[in-house]
Amino acid sequence: MVKQIAGGVCAPQGFRAAGVYCGVHPNRQKADLGLIVSDCPAAAAAVFTTNKVKAAPILVCQEHVARGVSRAVIVNSGNANACAPHSLENAYRMAQALGDQLGIKAEEVLVASTGVIGQPLNIAAIERGVSGAVAALSYRGSYAIAQAILTTDLRKKEVAVTCEIDGKCVTIGGVAKGSGMIHPNMGTMLAFLTSDCAINSALLQELLCSTVKRTFNRISIDGDTSTNDTCAILCNGMAENDPIITRDSNYYVFADALLEVMTFLAREIARDGEGARHLITCQVQHGDNETACEILAKSVISSSLVKAAIGGGDANWGRILCALGYAGVQFNPAKVDIVLGGGGRRVLVCRDGAGLAFDEELAAAILRCEEITIEIDLKGGDASVTAWGCDLTTDYVNINGNYRT
Amino acid sequence: MVKQIAGGVCAPQGFRAAGVYCGVHPNRQKADLGLIVSDCPAAAAAVFTTNKVKAAPILVCQEHVARGVSRAVIVNSGNANACAPHSLENAYRMAQALGDQLGIKAEEVLVASTGVIGQPLNIAAIERGVSGAVAALSYRGSYAIAQAILTTDLRKKEVAVTCEIDGKCVTIGGVAKGSGMIHPNMGTMLAFLTSDCAINSALLQELLCSTVKRTFNRISIDGDTSTNDTCAILCNGMAENDPIITRDSNYYVFADALLEVMTFLAREIARDGEGARHLITCQVQHGDNETACEILAKSVISSSLVKAAIGGGDANWGRILCALGYAGVQFNPAKVDIVLGGGGRRVLVCRDGAGLAFDEELAAAILRCEEITIEIDLKGGDASVTAWGCDLTTDYVNINGNYRT
Repeated sequence: MVKQIAGGVCAPQGFRAAGVYCGVHPNRQKADLGLIVSDCPAAAAAVFTTNKVKAAPILVCQEHVARGVSRAVIVNSGNANACAPHSLENAYRMAQALGDQLGIKAEEVLVASTGVIGQPLNIAAIERGVSGAVAALSYRGSYAIAQAILTTDLRKKEVAVTCEIDGKCVTIGGVAKGSGMIHPNMGTMLAFLTSDCAINSALLQELLCSTVKRTFNRISIDGDTSTNDTCAILCNGMAENDPIITRDSNYYVFADALLEVMTFLAREIARDGEGARHLITCQVQHGDNETACEILAKSVISSSLVKAAIGGGDANWGRILCALGYAGVQFNPAKVDIVLGGGGRRVLVCRDGAGLAFDEELAAAILRCEEITIEIDLKGGDASVTAWGCDLTTDYVNINGNYRT
Repeated sequence: MVKQIAGGVCAPQGFRAAGVYCGVHPNRQKADLGLIVSDCPAAAAAVFTTNKVKAAPILVCQEHVARGVSRAVIVNSGNANACAPHSLENAYRMAQALGDQLGIKAEEVLVASTGVIGQPLNIAAIERGVSGAVAALSYRGSYAIAQAILTTDLRKKEVAVTCEIDGKCVTIGGVAKGSGMIHPNMGTMLAFLTSDCAINSALLQELLCSTVKRTFNRISIDGDTSTNDTCAILCNGMAENDPIITRDSNYYVFADALLEVMTFLAREIARDGEGARHLITCQVQHGDNETACEILAKSVISSSLVKAAIGGGDANWGRILCALGYAGVQFNPAKVDIVLGGGGRRVLVCRDGAGLAFDEELAAAILRCEEITIEIDLKGGDASVTAWGCDLTTDYVNINGNYRT
């Protein structure tokens, strides 16, 4: 049984983390350099952005994670280290700086960056800051790295769960950042996961990919897929379970626990979208297949008009039906039912593809809830999918009208 | 030679138009019923939304235009007549009402609607209003229908051009509405075109489709493809040119003039996007093929982050490169140059996929211009494409937060 606990990425045995200020961005004073370090070599896997324009840290991280074993993660906020002079060299230097401080190889370090695109990275600030960050490493440091990776996010995102494998307590932890340029087509933005599970790294990579597809790839904040999306996991085996090397029952226990961690973080990212006031959960039910349901659900949560209507408290379900219609997959519009839900209450606003007289006051009350559910019943096949998004507000526009400076 | 003239859809010989208030929407007092009537039967063609959820007037219009000959158009704003009780019956009744008044068959009438989705159409108001609208028909009525079809648009959109075919002066006119739910994947929103050219209706249909692809299908305001998009043309032959029945030199003269009319209207729709303060023209140059260039250009003009940056006067070109990267087509990011232009000035902000120190004051001055150009040079093949969009402002969010009521 999967159980949530405190501690984030430091909840599993043998993981320390830190987050400090080093001065990456000239005008921002928040913590901007984060580390995760495993006490021993860990099986490693990662999923990256599908954007053709890839930030330099993506390239370095891809190379390093391909070894299947890593020891540490270094990440900065305030600059994406993308499309800028010396970006590749600087990404290697970040890995080297942490490797030198820890006395491990640079190749054992995973690298990530988030922030503005196209401006030179202040690598000197990072290199100066690494020793202080290493000195700050702590077995209770999850909150600090969760804070250090944020940009325009308002809340830090961390979670940990335990499950039992071979009678051993296995723990998985995670931290993430999201906020803007969020329409992952792989992993997402930044998410770092740790576990003390013993598991084969090839199997871990497959599991990470399939779980990313069901979690981070089912959220959207603004339809923009970043150049820097990275989801990486380190599993150091310190729980001392029999190593998972095949898809046995232990594998599925671990997979369920990992799904819970990643779903939690995905929802937290959607909830904390730039300017957002509502978490929108869209469930597409009884579709012909999972792919079709996913395309439909993501079309709804990506629609500017649906998002603006929910931001404005307007139960304009016609826009939901419209967004289904242009998603590009087959379904029968004349069979669609739409239910809006929130705060334990539900209201049917569309039956068989047409409007019906509904209680506008109830709908308005539902749309005032912080978590809103859009249930779409296609009355077709057996597939169903859940996707997550947020409302569109004037704050999103203001935040993104002047981000660079 | 193509020359712009006044008169809109009434500039060609033998076309009258009208726009009156009949009370379609309970809370809006603006003109909401428009007519275009040709003095004689006209070759007709139309292109419709690709949305799987199609409004009832689309279905009726498809059926009627399939005859290849039409006499008139009836259109209302204030209600989309989509996904609502009796919507199909009401669309037929609109055609019948105008047919009865004009003494022509209902099948000779094209029908369109725009406005809120999912609410019953006030067909009684339209039926009552048709006789007044017919009485108001005028050879100078283009401005009136241009006004009647608007919803949240701020400016009416009309244009006319002349060209010479067989020594005859051939005229093409057009009116359009856009504003929100604009991401056409066919024609667009509503656009009605008239001409006194004599042309075969099958050829006209092909020409309309190919021109829509290069004009209305290359604009985006918010990524939402409407349920009601319709672009229809009537050509009544009153210019007395030898009928165009093949792709001869006359055909290409007409095609060029039609392209100018439709490009003008497409740009006007983009310029008048909900809440927009800037028209954005995105030129993707030296791509491998036209399809790839189109996908890239539309990705840029559809990016919420690019649009918000331009709205905020921030030359955040990294978002432009990012939007190219996630468009899903092949190109070499390391060869991309990006130039921002406006008010006759230009500034290179990205060379070979990386940032360079540019004059921020010049960039800021350019971004204050009402018309802004983003030139993207892929330094690949010979194809190039232009697409049009607008900035994203807090006004867009406010307009769409409470549209139904």
